[in-house]
Amino acid sequence: MTEKIKIAVAGARGRMGSETVRMILNHPEFELVGAADTKYDGEKIADKIGILGTDARIYTDIEQLFTATAPDVLIDFTNPESGKHNLQQAIDYGVRPVIGTSGFTNEDVAVFKEQMDAKKLGGIIAPNFAIGAVLVMKFSQLAAKYFPDVEIIELHHDKKKDAPSGTAVKTAELISKTRQAKIQGAPDEKETLQGARGADYEGMRIHSIRLPGLIAHQEVLFGGKGELLTLRHDSMDRASFMTGVAYAVKTSMALDTLVYGLENVLD
Amino acid sequence: MTEKIKIAVAGARGRMGSETVRMILNHPEFELVGAADTKYDGEKIADKIGILGTDARIYTDIEQLFTATAPDVLIDFTNPESGKHNLQQAIDYGVRPVIGTSGFTNEDVAVFKEQMDAKKLGGIIAPNFAIGAVLVMKFSQLAAKYFPDVEIIELHHDKKKDAPSGTAVKTAELISKTRQAKIQGAPDEKETLQGARGADYEGMRIHSIRLPGLIAHQEVLFGGKGELLTLRHDSMDRASFMTGVAYAVKTSMALDTLVYGLENVLD
Amino acid sequence: MTEKIKIAVAGARGRMGSETVRMILNHPEFELVGAADTKYDGEKIADKIGILGTDARIYTDIEQLFTATAPDVLIDFTNPESGKHNLQQAIDYGVRPVIGTSGFTNEDVAVFKEQMDAKKLGGIIAPNFAIGAVLVMKFSQLAAKYFPDVEIIELHHDKKKDAPSGTAVKTAELISKTRQAKIQGAPDEKETLQGARGADYEGMRIHSIRLPGLIAHQEVLFGGKGELLTLRHDSMDRASFMTGVAYAVKTSMALDTLVYGLENVLD
Amino acid sequence: MTEKIKIAVAGARGRMGSETVRMILNHPEFELVGAADTKYDGEKIADKIGILGTDARIYTDIEQLFTATAPDVLIDFTNPESGKHNLQQAIDYGVRPVIGTSGFTNEDVAVFKEQMDAKKLGGIIAPNFAIGAVLVMKFSQLAAKYFPDVEIIELHHDKKKDAPSGTAVKTAELISKTRQAKIQGAPDEKETLQGARGADYEGMRIHSIRLPGLIAHQEVLFGGKGELLTLRHDSMDRASFMTGVAYAVKTSMALDTLVYGLENVLD
Repeated sequence: MTEKIKIAVAGARGRMGSETVRMILNHPEFELVGAADTKYDGEKIADKIGILGTDARIYTDIEQLFTATAPDVLIDFTNPESGKHNLQQAIDYGVRPVIGTSGFTNEDVAVFKEQMDAKKLGGIIAPNFAIGAVLVMKFSQLAAKYFPDVEIIELHHDKKKDAPSGTAVKTAELISKTRQAKIQGAPDEKETLQGARGADYEGMRIHSIRLPGLIAHQEVLFGGKGELLTLRHDSMDRASFMTGVAYAVKTSMALDTLVYGLENVLD
Repeated sequence: MTEKIKIAVAGARGRMGSETVRMILNHPEFELVGAADTKYDGEKIADKIGILGTDARIYTDIEQLFTATAPDVLIDFTNPESGKHNLQQAIDYGVRPVIGTSGFTNEDVAVFKEQMDAKKLGGIIAPNFAIGAVLVMKFSQLAAKYFPDVEIIELHHDKKKDAPSGTAVKTAELISKTRQAKIQGAPDEKETLQGARGADYEGMRIHSIRLPGLIAHQEVLFGGKGELLTLRHDSMDRASFMTGVAYAVKTSMALDTLVYGLENVLD
Repeated sequence: MTEKIKIAVAGARGRMGSETVRMILNHPEFELVGAADTKYDGEKIADKIGILGTDARIYTDIEQLFTATAPDVLIDFTNPESGKHNLQQAIDYGVRPVIGTSGFTNEDVAVFKEQMDAKKLGGIIAPNFAIGAVLVMKFSQLAAKYFPDVEIIELHHDKKKDAPSGTAVKTAELISKTRQAKIQGAPDEKETLQGARGADYEGMRIHSIRLPGLIAHQEVLFGGKGELLTLRHDSMDRASFMTGVAYAVKTSMALDTLVYGLENVLD
Repeated sequence: MTEKIKIAVAGARGRMGSETVRMILNHPEFELVGAADTKYDGEKIADKIGILGTDARIYTDIEQLFTATAPDVLIDFTNPESGKHNLQQAIDYGVRPVIGTSGFTNEDVAVFKEQMDAKKLGGIIAPNFAIGAVLVMKFSQLAAKYFPDVEIIELHHDKKKDAPSGTAVKTAELISKTRQAKIQGAPDEKETLQGARGADYEGMRIHSIRLPGLIAHQEVLFGGKGELLTLRHDSMDRASFMTGVAYAVKTSMALDTLVYGLENVLD
């Protein structure tokens, strides 16, 4: 029998963190060994997030956590400041980091990567763990080589404040790396109602739908002569990130460097 | 055996007119008796539009057409000027008009309707004969009573010059008759790329997609708490109008007035 | 100021019942006056379902509930047996019933309707309160008159045991009332893999998709020459029923008979 | 200025062949030099398929065609027998073959490939030139690694005789190479109407929709916890193959072997 991967979680009481704890407990190849937190030292994680099935304890000192529980992997869903601190400690103790915390700059990543390369330590930082969403971005980048005519429709609940969504802009950026630059639509097209043709990103158009009932959805349409290719992702709830977190944990075991972005470990 | 409905066509050499001729020839309850045209008097329609299966002739004088062939119905796909002339002649000769020609004002319709009411003559003028498109408008108007949050996405080929499409604007107008007025989306929503939220029609949003490969499509999305209702029409080619033309012909036989808009004879 | 509609709830501790309580408390025109239950007589509903904002009490005797709180409307989400008992009591006390409990036969409905007609008492029994789903059924029935070629695709989570869904079968039944009977597809079509063409319902085909990530969705496709009409409903969570329950409450106030099926009070 | 790629076409009077001729004439980098046919030796292709813009001639002897016009590439849309003959001649004369004709066995391909490897001659045989359709297959194969729960919906016009479509079966085959084998749906699911759950392909389900108005469409749905990934291709007309044929022509110029399947030259 292969041994289980031993995992510690930072931010276990948060929304993503508590989903992560649940995922670990349900995963046949994973074992939860402890949690890093800012309070409740020595108490049981289970009691704090209202679940059953684990006796793992909380540590307010992450070095103690590492020493006492010897995890293979640290999963971090905290905040930029704690995330960086925890990542540095993980490197020092040889624990593979899987980080979903946002706010890492390219410079931050470079500094940590250099240390991890030196130690041949594997790890992943990913701003988006929804594998389906990441695949849509990846496939869009590939498709745009053959179909330079692209429009993006992103659909979200009507409480969302920014338009277009971050994912839509990221997708357009990735597409623009492979897409032959062009202005789309008829050269003399006219908007009789302003905004109808959506936002312009290097000639591509992005449209943002906001309605109650919607959650988080994105559709990328590619048009060619006589044909249409559509790539769509529907995210129904937070649980959708857990397939990606589990994949990152397993992948980090086989890496000997730090990878930024889940798309770079999907083949 | 019931007798066939005898039909004359004006504009038979045009794109819609020649489709109409084909439809009549394939319809078990219809008979083509003649065509009104500006030239080719006395020649066979079949020879002019490259089809088989009818000996019906062309008349450059519409009164002669009516006298010689005694049609039950005149189908007109010409232009505003000819259309009005033909419609007046049809009324005078007691021929039921089915008119797809655009450019009739409300006043025009009122004048013709009065004459037809007096004679109890049935007929239909319809700017759009695609039954599916008309049903989407009709259903949208009904649905908006229960779902005041609406967004319209219309998708067309990338040669189309105007955005939004006439059908999208017409749909929004119809919806606004039953929809409780409201501004949609988050009150403090912000466009980080201008135009992302589409065109604003009384608080509803309209989005226009233009891509090669697309033909003519429209999607109306209604959002409610925890649910979404979507009505979509795809028009693949001109033939899509013929179901509606045939329906209008049969319906006109049972009417005793002039009806404007196919939606008013769909129950 | 108009007075609020006073509502009592039977089955308030169940899943639908507790959603109903929440809806009432958030609705500006509704007031919760009490709950009928099999136990906890005299206790506060709020304490039993973990909410705030109401002091309304539980009654184990429904006659006492009606006498003490004088509700305008009783909403019942219980079981067939209790539902019938509660409905009879409501009629006797002149309380308008809004019943979401299933299991009423046509005979049951007829008996209750006769009594309510005699008293000119309004009320609604509805097996499905999702207005969007009901509209899809209603619109499908209308569309099938013009488009006799129909296929139904219903999509649900992969824990669902029966296929096709009850809603899909109900939709097919309603469609068959207006659709001209016909066998669809090519007369000589062949399945090279058995089941590919789906289930056969009077020549229409029904297809059941089951996947994790899906919740409850239905799409009705109507095909005509050169065009396609699609009606789709997506149900994301139980809250989707509450728009319909609120609509039924308000509608029941203006009725003077018992109506079966929400579709019959949507105009 | 780079020289144009000189192209000969076999099967130019057929449906695919005549589209190919049109595509070549509209392509700035291509030049039509001649056509191989079974009759009309010496006549102009243009006269035979009713187009303008080329003086290229028909040859009934393909060796003469090659000698007289020295094409870089031969595009063949004929039949298995002629296709094999033409391919052999092309190899002998050092003309790169781009073959859309079906009916080549693995053995046929192996024999031709060996000869072409020896001569370092590039060429492509592809049963499907619709790049969008090929990308959906390719992306499906990638996605199935992360999402083993898959259902395929293919939608075609109602004259199609076989179900499921060849493309759907090919897609399922490709998916099964990367997908972890599993039976999908609830273990105790029951069909109350036979066929509702579609055709079974190694536990995946395939559903075939047939309606007038549809052309050729395919949707591959991948479900994961809380998320859904959808890949869809719509083929509106035969022109959709031409993007792929043009891509194959250009790609064949850089190859030094025979490739089977367009997916193997898309990166």
